[in-house]
Amino acid sequence: MKPILPKGTRDFSPTEVSRRNYMKEKIKLSYEKFGFEPIETPSFEKLEILRGNYSEEGDRLIFKILNSGEKLKKADIRSLKSNNISQFSKSISEKALRYDLTIPFARYVSKNQNAINFPFKRYQIQPVWRADRPQYGRFQEFLQCDADIIGSDSLFLEVDLILLCAEVFNKLDLKHITIKINHRKILYDISKKIGFKNNFKNFTTILDKFDKIGSKGIIDLLRKEDISTSKLSDLKYLLNLEGSNEFKLKSISEFLGTSFTENNGLNDINQILNNDFIQSSDNFKIEFDLTLARGLDYYTGSIFEISYTKNDGIGSIGGGGRYDDLTSTFGLKNMSGVGVSFGFDRIYLLMNELGVFPELTNITTQVLIANFGNETEKICFDILRNLRDKEIRTEFYPDFVRINNQLSYANKKNIPYVIIIGKNELVSKEFILKDLDKRVQSSYPLNNLLSVISKKIG
Amino acid sequence: MKPILPKGTRDFSPTEVSRRNYMKEKIKLSYEKFGFEPIETPSFEKLEILRGNYSEEGDRLIFKILNSGEKLKKADIRSLKSNNISQFSKSISEKALRYDLTIPFARYVSKNQNAINFPFKRYQIQPVWRADRPQYGRFQEFLQCDADIIGSDSLFLEVDLILLCAEVFNKLDLKHITIKINHRKILYDISKKIGFKNNFKNFTTILDKFDKIGSKGIIDLLRKEDISTSKLSDLKYLLNLEGSNEFKLKSISEFLGTSFTENNGLNDINQILNNDFIQSSDNFKIEFDLTLARGLDYYTGSIFEISYTKNDGIGSIGGGGRYDDLTSTFGLKNMSGVGVSFGFDRIYLLMNELGVFPELTNITTQVLIANFGNETEKICFDILRNLRDKEIRTEFYPDFVRINNQLSYANKKNIPYVIIIGKNELVSKEFILKDLDKRVQSSYPLNNLLSVISKKIG
Repeated sequence: MKPILPKGTRDFSPTEVSRRNYMKEKIKLSYEKFGFEPIETPSFEKLEILRGNYSEEGDRLIFKILNSGEKLKKADIRSLKSNNISQFSKSISEKALRYDLTIPFARYVSKNQNAINFPFKRYQIQPVWRADRPQYGRFQEFLQCDADIIGSDSLFLEVDLILLCAEVFNKLDLKHITIKINHRKILYDISKKIGFKNNFKNFTTILDKFDKIGSKGIIDLLRKEDISTSKLSDLKYLLNLEGSNEFKLKSISEFLGTSFTENNGLNDINQILNNDFIQSSDNFKIEFDLTLARGLDYYTGSIFEISYTKNDGIGSIGGGGRYDDLTSTFGLKNMSGVGVSFGFDRIYLLMNELGVFPELTNITTQVLIANFGNETEKICFDILRNLRDKEIRTEFYPDFVRINNQLSYANKKNIPYVIIIGKNELVSKEFILKDLDKRVQSSYPLNNLLSVISKKIG
Repeated sequence: MKPILPKGTRDFSPTEVSRRNYMKEKIKLSYEKFGFEPIETPSFEKLEILRGNYSEEGDRLIFKILNSGEKLKKADIRSLKSNNISQFSKSISEKALRYDLTIPFARYVSKNQNAINFPFKRYQIQPVWRADRPQYGRFQEFLQCDADIIGSDSLFLEVDLILLCAEVFNKLDLKHITIKINHRKILYDISKKIGFKNNFKNFTTILDKFDKIGSKGIIDLLRKEDISTSKLSDLKYLLNLEGSNEFKLKSISEFLGTSFTENNGLNDINQILNNDFIQSSDNFKIEFDLTLARGLDYYTGSIFEISYTKNDGIGSIGGGGRYDDLTSTFGLKNMSGVGVSFGFDRIYLLMNELGVFPELTNITTQVLIANFGNETEKICFDILRNLRDKEIRTEFYPDFVRINNQLSYANKKNIPYVIIIGKNELVSKEFILKDLDKRVQSSYPLNNLLSVISKKIG
């Protein structure tokens, strides 16, 4: 049997794990600095909890878990035969792997509402799964790092989340970051103003294709929605606006006129962007972008997307937004939530490509004790125990093989020191210490071993 | 929709996550001290990689992932109708959630054999999933912490793994641990000696029921296997042996006689237990136990199981053993592996019950800045920025609500300090610092804020 992996999944070697841990640690520290606390939820949820939140496309990409044993006998063969695949899978699956961390969080908050201290600031760093077609930067299993607040509609939170993004990328030493911001209510107002009569979800679904098909493609799709040519041309103008955030917002405000003062998307965005606590810099730009739609159905207010401006190909490396009343699906009403999610794996790819990881993140053995067979085994065991008692990471080579093989093992594992005690050393009560970095070796009295090693390790 | 969880799964609150992180950190430190390096593998593997390794019962408990979309049309309705559930699920599922970490590790080693530095000592701390009936200490999603070595058959590794177990429980401050040890080759020899003719796997499957049905139950099951009454009575005697490890091993040796010298199970166990590097202590007992069988098919040599002697109900809290040539399934021949796995969730339950976690493992906000509305907002933002620039974990309460609500939020979150700046303070250029632990408050000049706080936080 070939040892192959399912497509879109990856193994992580010790070096990769240690780099990923380095990243996780930076992100955790940022979250904690901003007052977020960690929670974890199960990898799978009941299918009905997940379904219906992510857009039609999203729902299709949810990994479903097959019911086991007897329950499988309830398979709805009729729906299979009539090609109703969705109905068929419902009959044999009740659970699904989480697609994101936001819906499980909303479910968590509703379930644990009596124990939660609101406004609840939580972070969550866990994998999610999507049955998406794998490509560069797109995996079927990937890690999301989310920070959300549920229980306040304060716009300060949007500001603080933008600051949190800046903090994370600063800690990761990643420059050339742009955070784009838009507002679902602005999009809603525009859809009304141009006379879009279909469900608003469809408007965002169309707009979400902007990156692929451009404003011309969007206009072509909207033409089928019975929208007047002049309104389409107005929209095209707005979608292609370039210039400062102020200029774009003013142009949209002029287009919308005074009829949409209730829906305060523009006010929200103005208030967020005019907060002088947040400022664009060379490394971290904040840009209003009307073409930003986000592919998830649950957003109702501000929406964000983060990108690395020097590598467009990798797509978004984070995103988020405000979702009013998402928890009401699970029985907790009138709660506003807002959050941001980092695409850990894409950021990891970028950092690898840019070579910004510290040279050595691996935590490896500090001392290898070479194996010279039975005669010296007892003394090696004693040394092993003594070094470990000092919390020095130590291993004893398990087999009596040629010393060159043992040294090569230490070299490949970046072990800095090897202790050698052969028959001669046993007689002279000495040990040889090889320093593999400096490629030198010296003999010392066995009695001094602990102090010699402690001094070297520091 | 009710916010309920799939059975056998759990949410973890901030306090639970921080306790679990505390445990993970101790286990990681132990693994690294013994020279193990971390790897990670995907949550799901191709079904054929997993199947056939865990016993029949195990195979049934593997969570399968439903194929998506078009592929579902290949559902084998005929096998469903003829009640061949296993065949039916194969036709609609190609991937499965990992059932343990050993098989994915063997797959990893085979796949990456050219990049690996053998003997390869890896640790892996990741969840596994089993469609088992949930009960006290048994979950459908739980965390395993494995340390394995592939590429050496040295018995020193068994000794070192036993020491590693002692290290882990010592670091976790858990006493009353027993590690039981047995050897598949001893069981094999015994099965031959009593004339068990069926596949050896069936012998271990029967013996694995010992905890539930006792020696009488075992003998009853074996009676059906056409084994003579005198041999059954010999076996019953061996299964009920009590006394020192030496006594038990000697009794088995006498029973087996000289005809089984090739199969050196007894030699292995003697060599491991006679190593004076490992010693039973009051907190950590090492016990040879012939009734230990382990439910996994892949073990070929020594087998271990760890239990907490003061709480039998929770079952095994860890286990492991040697598996020769497991990687050959995936194309890498002649590699011996040995490892140990800790059942993180059961140990977590035990530690919670025993109350051995440090009082406060949560990392929480250090300073809350109270919100007194627009007028004081700017100064609060400045303070927020300044404190965070000093890496002090600080948050600004997002809403202008009654101060008592804000203080109650801080109290529940264990935030030690609250900064209050109302209109009066704005005029007098002061701030109030509330110390919620000591339940006192004082005013200080605003100019001294950073130094006052830094001093308090330490």
